[in-house]
Amino acid sequence: MINKLVDKIKKVDAPIVVGLDPMMNYIPEHITKAAFAEYGETLEGAAEAIWQYNKGIVDATYDIIPAVKPQIAMYEQFGIEGLKAFQKTVDYCKSKDLVVIGDVKRGDIGSTSQAYAIAHLGKVQVGTKKISVFNEDFATVNPYLGSDGINPFIDVCKEENKGIFILVKTSNPSSGEFQDQLVNGRPLYELVGEQVAKWGETHMGNDYSYVGAVVGATYPEMGKILRKLMPKTYILVPGYGAQGGTAKDLAPYFNEDGLGAIVNSSRGIIAAYKQEKYASFGALNYADASRQAVIDMVEEIRGVLKK
Amino acid sequence: MINKLVDKIKKVDAPIVVGLDPMMNYIPEHITKAAFAEYGETLEGAAEAIWQYNKGIVDATYDIIPAVKPQIAMYEQFGIEGLKAFQKTVDYCKSKDLVVIGDVKRGDIGSTSQAYAIAHLGKVQVGTKKISVFNEDFATVNPYLGSDGINPFIDVCKEENKGIFILVKTSNPSSGEFQDQLVNGRPLYELVGEQVAKWGETHMGNDYSYVGAVVGATYPEMGKILRKLMPKTYILVPGYGAQGGTAKDLAPYFNEDGLGAIVNSSRGIIAAYKQEKYASFGALNYADASRQAVIDMVEEIRGVLKK
Repeated sequence: MINKLVDKIKKVDAPIVVGLDPMMNYIPEHITKAAFAEYGETLEGAAEAIWQYNKGIVDATYDIIPAVKPQIAMYEQFGIEGLKAFQKTVDYCKSKDLVVIGDVKRGDIGSTSQAYAIAHLGKVQVGTKKISVFNEDFATVNPYLGSDGINPFIDVCKEENKGIFILVKTSNPSSGEFQDQLVNGRPLYELVGEQVAKWGETHMGNDYSYVGAVVGATYPEMGKILRKLMPKTYILVPGYGAQGGTAKDLAPYFNEDGLGAIVNSSRGIIAAYKQEKYASFGALNYADASRQAVIDMVEEIRGVLKK
Repeated sequence: MINKLVDKIKKVDAPIVVGLDPMMNYIPEHITKAAFAEYGETLEGAAEAIWQYNKGIVDATYDIIPAVKPQIAMYEQFGIEGLKAFQKTVDYCKSKDLVVIGDVKRGDIGSTSQAYAIAHLGKVQVGTKKISVFNEDFATVNPYLGSDGINPFIDVCKEENKGIFILVKTSNPSSGEFQDQLVNGRPLYELVGEQVAKWGETHMGNDYSYVGAVVGATYPEMGKILRKLMPKTYILVPGYGAQGGTAKDLAPYFNEDGLGAIVNSSRGIIAAYKQEKYASFGALNYADASRQAVIDMVEEIRGVLKK
């Protein structure tokens, strides 16, 4: 799956991923109104609005992007109905041949970690049958519990040719509270990064590992160091746009082959029509605004990578 | 809710929580057979088996335990149908007046962390309505992302009078890979523990905070230190029984008031009938075996606390 991700990034020449993190206040009124008219102000109504909103964005962008990253929390908050919309979104994106990164940040140990891996990447045994569940292509995973948490994911990844992205240095302001603490003079995130590189060696694709890392765009100096520590690791880069990361901050995350990183934008793409820059599209044409925002983002990043 | 948890622990005189972590191979054949006969070897069939299995255990133990801790991964691996069984289990346990600790180990930042908090502890806004979702009483949370990840949970906890347990030192063998790294001569888990105590001060119950900690039974020396660092923090203690923690290891986790800790057992209770000790109950009476295992566990812990 890492090979497919790299191939798709090359094919569309766009090292980006669209974060499908629907918030109710992003969804244009005409969609919410129609969903509530059919299902009422219920969890089903909310889930229907989310699904229709996502579908519009995917239909308008799937030919120019390699991947999507649905954030499961935004679905989970609507309970079972929300999770049905998550599953529908995953399935639909896969039918459009997009690589799907489930942003689930799960992390536990042993058989529990295995259960999460099965839920998101594998197949569950039911009697004599093996059944796919949410079936994303990649999942994000939290490293705090160590190898006992990561290895069960890697085992499932090996069986299924799938991958994970492990949190190393997150994009948020308080990420340093624990991640930046110095251990023998070096920040903890470097230790985690080194360990990610080691875990990655156990499941390699052609040029990159199936085991990737999450490093926020908001810390380019740290990105530079981590890039060197993890040369075969694909880096998923959140924090571009709304969180403050700019295109020029992104260069250090890439290798000299122009690969090795995939930059996420969520709000900046899916709610583009709410920005002044794209306001002329109007809420009805929100998906066209998203397409334009993708084009602009890709152009910005290409500009930086050419330098 | 922390007050309710403490009251319930006092009332049944049992500082324990039953981990409802159903694995298919724990479930007695008569239950699985009946479920597959009705729904086939499907996710629905697996979910029905899990639900019936849980219900049996809850019916047999609810009057002698204060709380349950369903591990959501074990449900999530069966997808939407599994999560319906999770929700049914939570609802049923609450109808039996048990405190429900959702072992979800979620952790993200900002609005995403808020969405998880809403999913598990709060109410979601849908149009003009606010709707409860999974509605556990407590949730477990991962601290790796720092305050940006924890504060949205605390905000929802304040609104709802609910609580969280933050991972500090987990029970697994590799937990030390990152958690034990020395920062200025002190292990990272101590820093996390101190921060948990600080977060806890912002949302206090009568004697203990709504913000608890997870510290594994397998590291009693560390438990002793963390108990002192976090005097007002309730400690959720996994790792007793199957993972190797023994009753005598538990004393340091408690305060002198005999409170301050709640010990989890999952497999040791819910699959008790599979142990030689309880084999005479037989698979048909698995729930009675679970009840006896609860009685024995409570007696063991009481013995240690009296010393």
